Amino acid sequence: MEATRSPHPYVPRDLKLPGYVPNLLSQLSILGIYGIASVLVAAFIWFISGMPFPLLDKVLMCWWAFTGLTHMILESYYLFSPEFYKDESAFYLSEVWKEYSKGDSRYAGRDSVIVTLEILAVVLVGPASLLAVYAIAKGKLYSYILQFAVSLIHLCGTAVYFITALLEGDDFAASPFYYYFYFVVINSFWIVIPTAICIRCWKKICAAFNNQGQKKVKSR
Amino acid sequence: MEATRSPHPYVPRDLKLPGYVPNLLSQLSILGIYGIASVLVAAFIWFISGMPFPLLDKVLMCWWAFTGLTHMILESYYLFSPEFYKDESAFYLSEVWKEYSKGDSRYAGRDSVIVTLEILAVVLVGPASLLAVYAIAKGKLYSYILQFAVSLIHLCGTAVYFITALLEGDDFAASPFYYYFYFVVINSFWIVIPTAICIRCWKKICAAFNNQGQKKVKSR
Repeated sequence: MEATRSPHPYVPRDLKLPGYVPNLLSQLSILGIYGIASVLVAAFIWFISGMPFPLLDKVLMCWWAFTGLTHMILESYYLFSPEFYKDESAFYLSEVWKEYSKGDSRYAGRDSVIVTLEILAVVLVGPASLLAVYAIAKGKLYSYILQFAVSLIHLCGTAVYFITALLEGDDFAASPFYYYFYFVVINSFWIVIPTAICIRCWKKICAAFNNQGQKKVKSR
Repeated sequence: MEATRSPHPYVPRDLKLPGYVPNLLSQLSILGIYGIASVLVAAFIWFISGMPFPLLDKVLMCWWAFTGLTHMILESYYLFSPEFYKDESAFYLSEVWKEYSKGDSRYAGRDSVIVTLEILAVVLVGPASLLAVYAIAKGKLYSYILQFAVSLIHLCGTAVYFITALLEGDDFAASPFYYYFYFVVINSFWIVIPTAICIRCWKKICAAFNNQGQKKVKSR
């Protein structure tokens, strides 16, 4: 049996994490690397997509590339590394999850809801998000329905994530700072942006049926 | 403190349900009433929808009315009756949940995942399913995207329902009979039918964009 090397900083305090190793990178480094990598991904997509795209489509391609890679790199690592909290090599991806667990210890504790949501994110939402970049770039007919579908899954996942936390006492954050910054603010991006995309796609799809209907009327 | 009146039939055996009252209606009565009520709802929708609808649209209206009323009556009762297992009046809706809990005791035990999924079903999916009946009946432009959205939420909910059960040991059924009949077979309707609806709506939406595109090309 492995001894606990250091008391962990997570709440609830009685969460068992034998072999826990504290964060070796600073909060600034962890967030800074994620921020810089995200900006680089967005800049790459922005420049290779070139001129023919409307501004909004370029912004959406950046979003889909960013969220898709977040699911497929960060969340995929989480899914396949149940003992990330024992890592003592300062490996960036384990540092991310040690840090994020301060906002929601269900990650370190491997709550079945979290693992379920991460399975869906890695297997389904990640690849589908990258497909959305391609669909917008190539002007595919399925572009709007795909973006709607992935955004709706984001919203369902976030709803399940927040509601289960509330039902279980909403006490998984190490401090109010981590609660509001990591748990509330960071996750709210995956509410606000998917909601906006769903509304836009819904309108575009209704408009397509409207145009199709007018065409049928005219062709009578 | 209330004494346990009778040992409950659910698994895990150590689930605490003080005041449990066994089913007062037979399995045949519970399933029979649900079956007959569902057939009556479908028949009502079938006859009031009349002749102008294609066969498939009539079938879909029956499905949406059936699933919408299931969410809004059965599941709504579950949500607001945390102590349904204590009911000794043979009230039909509490009898349903006492019986279904034999296939998945997380219902009687009020697991937070189950309550979360039921909140979404009652608040969102139930009303949206009934709106789908209206949307098909009136040929609304949003008919396909609405049906797609509700079916996708069904699929996400069922995925979370099954994956969390598997991750938590898949041991919530009173016997293999209840496991396969209640947990697997009954829920599989909410996989097979929503999948078929999603595929159909996806194709219809792509076809609408295709027609819109052809119209634009022709009008140049």
